[in-house]
Amino acid sequence: MMMEASFDTEESFDDPSCLAPQPPGSVSPARRQTVKEVKETKATVNCVTFPLPGEGPEQQLLKPNDWSYCDYFWADKKDPQGGACIPGIEVLLQKQLKGKSLQKEMAEFIHERIKIEEEYAKNLSKLSLSPLAALEEGTLGEAWTQLKKSLHDEAEVHLKFSNKLHSEVEKPLLAFRGEHFKKDLKKYDHHIADLRKQLASKYAGVEKARKALADRQKDLEVKTHQLDVKAHKHEEDIKKARRKSTQAGDDLMRSLDFYNQTQCKWFEEMVTSSMELEKMEVERIEFIQTHLRQYTTLRHETDMFNQSTVEPVDQLLQSVDPAKDRELWVRENNTGDVRPVDLDI
Amino acid sequence: MMMEASFDTEESFDDPSCLAPQPPGSVSPARRQTVKEVKETKATVNCVTFPLPGEGPEQQLLKPNDWSYCDYFWADKKDPQGGACIPGIEVLLQKQLKGKSLQKEMAEFIHERIKIEEEYAKNLSKLSLSPLAALEEGTLGEAWTQLKKSLHDEAEVHLKFSNKLHSEVEKPLLAFRGEHFKKDLKKYDHHIADLRKQLASKYAGVEKARKALADRQKDLEVKTHQLDVKAHKHEEDIKKARRKSTQAGDDLMRSLDFYNQTQCKWFEEMVTSSMELEKMEVERIEFIQTHLRQYTTLRHETDMFNQSTVEPVDQLLQSVDPAKDRELWVRENNTGDVRPVDLDI
Repeated sequence: MMMEASFDTEESFDDPSCLAPQPPGSVSPARRQTVKEVKETKATVNCVTFPLPGEGPEQQLLKPNDWSYCDYFWADKKDPQGGACIPGIEVLLQKQLKGKSLQKEMAEFIHERIKIEEEYAKNLSKLSLSPLAALEEGTLGEAWTQLKKSLHDEAEVHLKFSNKLHSEVEKPLLAFRGEHFKKDLKKYDHHIADLRKQLASKYAGVEKARKALADRQKDLEVKTHQLDVKAHKHEEDIKKARRKSTQAGDDLMRSLDFYNQTQCKWFEEMVTSSMELEKMEVERIEFIQTHLRQYTTLRHETDMFNQSTVEPVDQLLQSVDPAKDRELWVRENNTGDVRPVDLDI
Repeated sequence: MMMEASFDTEESFDDPSCLAPQPPGSVSPARRQTVKEVKETKATVNCVTFPLPGEGPEQQLLKPNDWSYCDYFWADKKDPQGGACIPGIEVLLQKQLKGKSLQKEMAEFIHERIKIEEEYAKNLSKLSLSPLAALEEGTLGEAWTQLKKSLHDEAEVHLKFSNKLHSEVEKPLLAFRGEHFKKDLKKYDHHIADLRKQLASKYAGVEKARKALADRQKDLEVKTHQLDVKAHKHEEDIKKARRKSTQAGDDLMRSLDFYNQTQCKWFEEMVTSSMELEKMEVERIEFIQTHLRQYTTLRHETDMFNQSTVEPVDQLLQSVDPAKDRELWVRENNTGDVRPVDLDI
């Protein structure tokens, strides 16, 4: 299933050498002579066998120019503290875990912003209800009342901003890759770690078989050069030793075969898993990009809506008219327009 | 001086009747007969003399269609609680005092707004320094860093807004009409109140003279109809009484003249003062209008500057590139690109 998942998104790549294991067979004398030389072209590190630099056929990257995870995490990472090595797959999994916590931290940051907006809105709408200068009259009074009201409108704009920040940015960032995520990652981890364990035991098998073969071959040498024994009994011993040596050779070929098959399984698992993880990282980055874009869109909206809260104030300030205000006030407060005249008898 | 002040700003107006007082003179018999009728065409209220409705020549407003203070505050205002009356000038002065305190309240309101902006800016720049998700890498990391920085820029915008609100709106509103203002108003008050006192004493003088004249006339009547006395002595008495009556008539004419001159002084003072106060009210309204306009201008600027804080974030979000980020990360964190190969003998 992971195989498919990876091939859904990635074109298939040229089979690596290990996908075509040599068929098991008996050790030919020629082969036996090459063992030493062969050993010098490869090195087995933590039970994984790599060609030595400059040895073996040239390797092409599985996905050239793509910096694909599947091409760069084959070796184990030396622990800087010189402790245990970290498998390449671990490095990829840790990257995912770090990404997950960063995404959570971004949500936290947005949450803090939301709180600031709510506080600001609260203060603005509180002030807009203040009775200050409520007794101002006429057209000036209307403009002033609208100015105070505009603070309430501003508060609404910032409240809307904080609500949308919550539903359209904070919540999605928190929801993306829920609590199952870490369990899912563990699966990759366990699966590949298990294959590495198998690889180790198979490698031990190879070492054991190799030693057994060596012993048998030594024994055969000794017997062939023995002279001081009865000829017919001697022939028997040599035949027996040669049979056992051939047997040991076959055992070695078989365990080599088991080892290579297991390493191949691990290889395939590494390729598909790392490509899965690579896909997940692309998704994470694009998801965050989308939601930070949403943040800036909401910020732009807020500034635009804010503009509109001032316009009605501007209009009423335009039409402030001292003459009109005087008329209104004089109509209400005049004491009489009859002028005094001279008194006479 | 106030006279000038008012004529600086107002075209002079048609002389009201009282500016042309009748010349003092002796009471002609004809005049004496008209006293009763004359009394019915005028009424003296709180020592100010007004024509009765429909009586006397039609009055044109001094500044028609202008609702000028100088045309509408001649009578005293009845105190709703039926207590002492409030002179018209008082009503105008109270309007000024109210305007002064409203302007102070507006400054207070702006001050509250300034505090809200400062608090908001403080919170934004504090959050912009948060270490949250600081470990995000590559192009996404750059965009995130810019997003956090943009909160600092927003804070700067709101801080600038609050500073300008302080220097360009709050301070001018507080400074307009400083502590001398109330003292200046008191001057109008005292000056006119003083003229009203003089008017009252002159009116008392008129009443006294009127009574004296009435007594003298009665005495003359009596003497003229006395018959049972010596003819020559009788003639003497009548002459004497007639002289005293004429004397009392002249006294009355003189005190009427004093009264009318004082009322005329008060009238002129009322016209110039009320026009001064009218001018001051126009100035107050225009001053506040100008500074509330400055408030809305600053608000618009703030929204515009805010827009610009988001643009660099948008640009960096545009150029977020998962492939590039993978390359950067793989270059740094890869464990090895040499693929495993089959192990053989």
